[in-house]
Amino acid sequence: METCDLAIRGGTLVTATDQFSADIGIRDGRIVQIAESVSATEEIDASGLLVLPGGIDAHVHLDQPTSDGTVMADDFASGTRSAAAGGNTTVLPFAMQVKGSSLRQSVEDYHRKADGNCFTDVSFHLVISDPTPQVLGQELPALVRDGYTSFKVFMTYDDLMLNDTELLEVFDVARREQALVMVHAEGHDAIRYMTDKLETEGKTAPYYHAEAHAQIAEREATHRAISHAQLTDVPVVIVHVSGRDPMEQIQWARKRGMKVFAETCPQYITLTRDDLKGLNMDFEGAKYVCSPPPRDHDSQAAIWDGLRDGTFDLFSSDHCPFYFEAPDNTGKNNDRARTSFKWVPNGIPGVETRLPILFSEGVSKGRISIERFVALTSTNPARLYGLHPQKGTLSVGADADITLWDPELQATIRQDRLNHGSDYTPFEGLQITGWPVRTILRGQTVAKDGKPTAAAASGRHLKRGTSVTGYP
Amino acid sequence: METCDLAIRGGTLVTATDQFSADIGIRDGRIVQIAESVSATEEIDASGLLVLPGGIDAHVHLDQPTSDGTVMADDFASGTRSAAAGGNTTVLPFAMQVKGSSLRQSVEDYHRKADGNCFTDVSFHLVISDPTPQVLGQELPALVRDGYTSFKVFMTYDDLMLNDTELLEVFDVARREQALVMVHAEGHDAIRYMTDKLETEGKTAPYYHAEAHAQIAEREATHRAISHAQLTDVPVVIVHVSGRDPMEQIQWARKRGMKVFAETCPQYITLTRDDLKGLNMDFEGAKYVCSPPPRDHDSQAAIWDGLRDGTFDLFSSDHCPFYFEAPDNTGKNNDRARTSFKWVPNGIPGVETRLPILFSEGVSKGRISIERFVALTSTNPARLYGLHPQKGTLSVGADADITLWDPELQATIRQDRLNHGSDYTPFEGLQITGWPVRTILRGQTVAKDGKPTAAAASGRHLKRGTSVTGYP
Amino acid sequence: METCDLAIRGGTLVTATDQFSADIGIRDGRIVQIAESVSATEEIDASGLLVLPGGIDAHVHLDQPTSDGTVMADDFASGTRSAAAGGNTTVLPFAMQVKGSSLRQSVEDYHRKADGNCFTDVSFHLVISDPTPQVLGQELPALVRDGYTSFKVFMTYDDLMLNDTELLEVFDVARREQALVMVHAEGHDAIRYMTDKLETEGKTAPYYHAEAHAQIAEREATHRAISHAQLTDVPVVIVHVSGRDPMEQIQWARKRGMKVFAETCPQYITLTRDDLKGLNMDFEGAKYVCSPPPRDHDSQAAIWDGLRDGTFDLFSSDHCPFYFEAPDNTGKNNDRARTSFKWVPNGIPGVETRLPILFSEGVSKGRISIERFVALTSTNPARLYGLHPQKGTLSVGADADITLWDPELQATIRQDRLNHGSDYTPFEGLQITGWPVRTILRGQTVAKDGKPTAAAASGRHLKRGTSVTGYP
Amino acid sequence: METCDLAIRGGTLVTATDQFSADIGIRDGRIVQIAESVSATEEIDASGLLVLPGGIDAHVHLDQPTSDGTVMADDFASGTRSAAAGGNTTVLPFAMQVKGSSLRQSVEDYHRKADGNCFTDVSFHLVISDPTPQVLGQELPALVRDGYTSFKVFMTYDDLMLNDTELLEVFDVARREQALVMVHAEGHDAIRYMTDKLETEGKTAPYYHAEAHAQIAEREATHRAISHAQLTDVPVVIVHVSGRDPMEQIQWARKRGMKVFAETCPQYITLTRDDLKGLNMDFEGAKYVCSPPPRDHDSQAAIWDGLRDGTFDLFSSDHCPFYFEAPDNTGKNNDRARTSFKWVPNGIPGVETRLPILFSEGVSKGRISIERFVALTSTNPARLYGLHPQKGTLSVGADADITLWDPELQATIRQDRLNHGSDYTPFEGLQITGWPVRTILRGQTVAKDGKPTAAAASGRHLKRGTSVTGYP
Repeated sequence: METCDLAIRGGTLVTATDQFSADIGIRDGRIVQIAESVSATEEIDASGLLVLPGGIDAHVHLDQPTSDGTVMADDFASGTRSAAAGGNTTVLPFAMQVKGSSLRQSVEDYHRKADGNCFTDVSFHLVISDPTPQVLGQELPALVRDGYTSFKVFMTYDDLMLNDTELLEVFDVARREQALVMVHAEGHDAIRYMTDKLETEGKTAPYYHAEAHAQIAEREATHRAISHAQLTDVPVVIVHVSGRDPMEQIQWARKRGMKVFAETCPQYITLTRDDLKGLNMDFEGAKYVCSPPPRDHDSQAAIWDGLRDGTFDLFSSDHCPFYFEAPDNTGKNNDRARTSFKWVPNGIPGVETRLPILFSEGVSKGRISIERFVALTSTNPARLYGLHPQKGTLSVGADADITLWDPELQATIRQDRLNHGSDYTPFEGLQITGWPVRTILRGQTVAKDGKPTAAAASGRHLKRGTSVTGYP
Repeated sequence: METCDLAIRGGTLVTATDQFSADIGIRDGRIVQIAESVSATEEIDASGLLVLPGGIDAHVHLDQPTSDGTVMADDFASGTRSAAAGGNTTVLPFAMQVKGSSLRQSVEDYHRKADGNCFTDVSFHLVISDPTPQVLGQELPALVRDGYTSFKVFMTYDDLMLNDTELLEVFDVARREQALVMVHAEGHDAIRYMTDKLETEGKTAPYYHAEAHAQIAEREATHRAISHAQLTDVPVVIVHVSGRDPMEQIQWARKRGMKVFAETCPQYITLTRDDLKGLNMDFEGAKYVCSPPPRDHDSQAAIWDGLRDGTFDLFSSDHCPFYFEAPDNTGKNNDRARTSFKWVPNGIPGVETRLPILFSEGVSKGRISIERFVALTSTNPARLYGLHPQKGTLSVGADADITLWDPELQATIRQDRLNHGSDYTPFEGLQITGWPVRTILRGQTVAKDGKPTAAAASGRHLKRGTSVTGYP
Repeated sequence: METCDLAIRGGTLVTATDQFSADIGIRDGRIVQIAESVSATEEIDASGLLVLPGGIDAHVHLDQPTSDGTVMADDFASGTRSAAAGGNTTVLPFAMQVKGSSLRQSVEDYHRKADGNCFTDVSFHLVISDPTPQVLGQELPALVRDGYTSFKVFMTYDDLMLNDTELLEVFDVARREQALVMVHAEGHDAIRYMTDKLETEGKTAPYYHAEAHAQIAEREATHRAISHAQLTDVPVVIVHVSGRDPMEQIQWARKRGMKVFAETCPQYITLTRDDLKGLNMDFEGAKYVCSPPPRDHDSQAAIWDGLRDGTFDLFSSDHCPFYFEAPDNTGKNNDRARTSFKWVPNGIPGVETRLPILFSEGVSKGRISIERFVALTSTNPARLYGLHPQKGTLSVGADADITLWDPELQATIRQDRLNHGSDYTPFEGLQITGWPVRTILRGQTVAKDGKPTAAAASGRHLKRGTSVTGYP
Repeated sequence: METCDLAIRGGTLVTATDQFSADIGIRDGRIVQIAESVSATEEIDASGLLVLPGGIDAHVHLDQPTSDGTVMADDFASGTRSAAAGGNTTVLPFAMQVKGSSLRQSVEDYHRKADGNCFTDVSFHLVISDPTPQVLGQELPALVRDGYTSFKVFMTYDDLMLNDTELLEVFDVARREQALVMVHAEGHDAIRYMTDKLETEGKTAPYYHAEAHAQIAEREATHRAISHAQLTDVPVVIVHVSGRDPMEQIQWARKRGMKVFAETCPQYITLTRDDLKGLNMDFEGAKYVCSPPPRDHDSQAAIWDGLRDGTFDLFSSDHCPFYFEAPDNTGKNNDRARTSFKWVPNGIPGVETRLPILFSEGVSKGRISIERFVALTSTNPARLYGLHPQKGTLSVGADADITLWDPELQATIRQDRLNHGSDYTPFEGLQITGWPVRTILRGQTVAKDGKPTAAAASGRHLKRGTSVTGYP
């Protein structure tokens, strides 16, 4: 056998089902050997460390334009640098169609932003905001064939939402092209009704975002999306599920044999609506404004049950980074946002802290096994989004995307240690046991001890295949 | 005690909980005595007969204008004549707001049609099709105070449907005014999607109405209506529930303590979607087109379970009468309807056959008790819609609305024996055991042996109170 | 019409479905007239009062011998005197077979105790503790035909319990004879296991009774009883259901169409396991020892849901009266009981306080309607146990069993105001709004303002028919 | 790196989560290398084949004495030969305590039967039939520490069953020793009741075994076992689950967070109760008599859902081999069995056909993925029963237990091709796509093309650790 370029030696390998001691041999960026002993030109000592498939963050917003003058705090360079420092080797950001524009054009725009600027591999989900006959009949089928095999639709937000007819049409195309649909499930009109009511009552602090985006509205939209998927016979992913109510709908659908997949995020196991109160209902709460909002401790317990029992397939960050303070009203704390919660930009940063949070709160605290951690954060996203077996596991032939993890390392999440673009983290102060110490992308170390170690051009865009979970 | 005007002697009285032999004494149109023996100026011999509270049909369409040139086959005279012949003493038709018009004006229009022309008592539900600020803020509250304490909203039909925001606003007013909301729950966009798909495939026969109006669409809308009701904290009635799927949503909601009431109809226990096939998929199937459409035998079984176990509070006709053949394209069989199922007028007649069908299929066949029959067809509608204790029971002080019923009388439903305006009945040929033989409205016999015996001016419009079931 | 002996004038009559103002005319102990105005030789003014069907307490233990030397605090005279003072006109005590004895003989023994000594009507449920072929093949069928149409079986208690084979055999006979089976559902071995474990840990205070009789054991036995009933196709009543877990089994069974009926009791809505702690885990807790034990506030909430939504058909007292202090170790506080909770006699008094507690906590506090109160405490027991329409309602022809109720009367439950034999009440100090002021048995006033007003020979034993609810 | 003894080259490796092309290098019976290319002294060409972890059959009865004079058709030699030919490298048979004997003695007896006579590795589950204080207090804890970390209890069979107290005591020890309990869940008394009833009606043909062992009895016992496990806080495995009803209990328990695992078997996806009818209700049906019996097509569909959705962790054979025809009444067709189904020996052979049946019906027919096949038949049993990571996966350091599988090979199950001791197979004639072509035990080929290729001394007894799934 030819000599390897790189050997990772002495660690404990973990996959979605196994743990064992072995060395890994890498050549030309791929795993070519897993063995009791591997020697190579270059060797990394992984003694005492876990050797995990690199993290895949399947829900990341980078460099998206906004309609209200605020600015996203991460471009592709800073966002993927942050991801790599947090143990990820692949992220799946969105290429978002602007209403009135061609979808293909939008994809090209995002390629221009991303290509050559990434520390991790990336692959775009499409966002369909304007499903014209041209988009549905020609652009979308062509894009799926080009490897953009998943698209997201919104049931709320004025500039993004599709009505039910449009949702059904998009679902229809998805089934025909064997693509996967991701759904942001919140009922627009219910949110608007609640918002108007709260504003009328003078309740405009950021906290009221959590009341306006009621869990009932999320549950209703989840049921509606599931019904549309059932009618069109298409698999769907309900993204960023926040609590017990929408979970119940997903479990109900699955019990009836429907292909409904589910994702949750760090904010739903670590934050509650009370965080939006800030200090005494002040504007500090805006730091935690995202949609759906964090709920309560009962929903956190439900989410943990779901992470354990398989209700959730995916644990993603929904990284959607804004500045808190920024000039010219470009951050969360802007003139208009201070007049009403409804103008506070929705989204929080989290691509760098996703893996440590789940490891620490889940594995270190005995709530989930390390194998389940790997499944939720790497193997399942790879399988669901058409990247497997190239990504998401430690097997011969796979890309050598590997994260070395120190399960004992203790640290506290602090903004000044993070690499993202935002000027704050909503997880400030959280005590963590277990951190990634080295991130290896196709054999190359792209981050070490929380800092980037490679050029921003290390990452590539990935063409994806059909979802093996969605269309088995 | 003063002498009675009328005594009904020797029968078996049945209420929602009791059966016993007694005479009834009536004076000035009210029950004043229930006793072992009553004598009066006039006496009716009820030996061998059941003495029931007069039927209350809580879901009846009469003399409504249509937007497509077809004509309703019943005005108030013929519709209530048919109702009386079928054992009913009260019907609740709709006063339907025309978009762009005042609701108060619509109510007055319907009064002009009804007043002085009814064989039974009547009381209007309002239909809100245009919830302007004027309607919501002023007309509706005033009308509730005037005794129009229930209103219906549609989630489908181009000229009637409300969007989710409008639904929420109407629900909000209902809670504030302690009125009851009835919901026609079918998802408009899902139906349109299915319709377009079927038409594209050349599937235009009346039968495809049953596929277009999928049970999934009914279930989704039911869940949505329930969620809106939960958000606004208002009791709702899901009307004309057709099968297992929407029932499951209703049961789910109740188990969580929500005030969700449910109604079903004769078509859902006697017809199936196969009836819409007519003879070999021909236009005969149009005779059975109504919304939601009849489903299958599994759903029939589910409906029976629900009638027994209390899932259903109401059994109404949803009488919505059209001619099958009529000149100038005013019947179901019109030029446009023959081009696609989507143009077939939705609705079937049934106000006269409702009670015999439930008695025969339910009581005579041993599926439900006679007490439950009385509850479903008279007592519950009275309690739910604010007519109790004046209507819906046999108690001292109540209006003397009484139906004498021969439980052994066997007959077959035939168009030529019915009093409604339509030229057909969808229940043609159904064998019935148990018929009403005399209908007494406030002491006056308005029908006997299936024929009217009084003037059309016998009935009055009833001002209703707050629902005791909805707002206990 | 002949003159009445007695008229009850000016009250508000309440049945399981109606409320209305009327007079009641009574002759020869039966209701012969309900009318706007009734005159009679004797008249009772019921203005401002509710006129209810007399209470039927379907679960009462009187004068039963015990195997441990303790003595029941009520014989038939004191027990039915207490019942009458508490608004009841009928009680259903148990005729309990002693192992090794003939069942018929046991019934005759109980008749000797009861006949001529009752202030209310009574009718015996049979307790089968020794289902020999003679009992199953001959005695039981004959007794059912003689009007003893219900029998109770125990799944725990060393001297009473039947094993699964015996349960199945008894159920089999019940189906054949169209009798109703009542089940005390607690898993004997699980209780014994818990008891041994607690005793080993030195946990012997009365409180540990509540831990030994775990809700899991009650749920398991409930499921088992339901399964046996399903296998033998027989209706069963699960008596004294204490909380959420067994309720869930009952709801599950009903949803599958099984005929499973359910009863709960005052202790499960007013007491919790914490009451068994007494003062600092002392022996005072023994006053609250009954089986199943009271649970927690969550189970109380579940019970209220069940009383509202129809999960429960019956609200009975499970009156099982012991002295707390009594000479010669005949009370709860005896030498052996102080060594371990397992020797504390199981049971509490409650026949006199059942109706006031449900009225006050349920009707006065707005949790249930007055009609539902009547259904749970009178109409349903009559229908289920074969006493309807003679008992359980206000209808012409029925026995004139009537309770006059003052809905505004406020008082506190105090031992010194009660008529039972026990020297304490577990409900001491409970504030009540709404008390019975007069109890009329077949036209004769047997109690007034909480005191007996008739001779103990007023009551009769009732021969019962087939359950109309169980075998419709 | 040292040279390997054996290389398996060119195949497609499959684990519970991955599929990829690689070679496997083996030295001293263990996997030391998984790589793009491995060379070794001896090489096996696996091109076109799947390379799977060797099958682990976790439920196998071998050489057990019976109480009725019948004889088991397999000793350890023939049973494990059959297992090896069917693609298995490990089987878990039972060491069954005889009532009145020491458990340790029973284990030694089974070692005498097994040691040196096995074609596969074996490890005994203990069967506790006589839980004396000596057994519970001393033998069992010592045996768990010696690596017998699982035991089975029976809720039926006169000579094996434990009563509820005994079950609770055994569960208690299991929790204390961190052992796993397997439960044969069928309600003994319910079966006896049904048996007596059927015999009384003259229904004695083998078919009536399926009626006597009603699914209700299995569901009830499942609920009971789960309740006992909840009370004692111990993980349990419900073995050989046959249909929808017990599955529902398992799902219910899991949703409440209980550790309940489930196993099903080939007979429940391929046979139905109708197979027990033989030809026209004759004795041929005895060939299919096992407990629980096969159910119906609805239950088969439910089982498939459960295999897909994770309700089932294990797919085992429950191999329990009898002769059909054998001299001296030692087979199924014996004098006593012909008088009543209740004397027909319970059990069917299946250790050799388990893997082909699940592969063909599951993977080849598209019902489950190949990864799920591996999980159900090898990885999960290894993890659950304390054999992982030594067994049940393809990872470096694991035993080289490997099955080469030809996914395209088509064949029909025929008795004359099988290696088991029975004179028939209940799966005769079943068409199979996909067979094991080579079975490798710790590097040694023990079977090839359906025939043994090694000495019977190849297998060893395995000492097991704590269940990682049960006690995470």
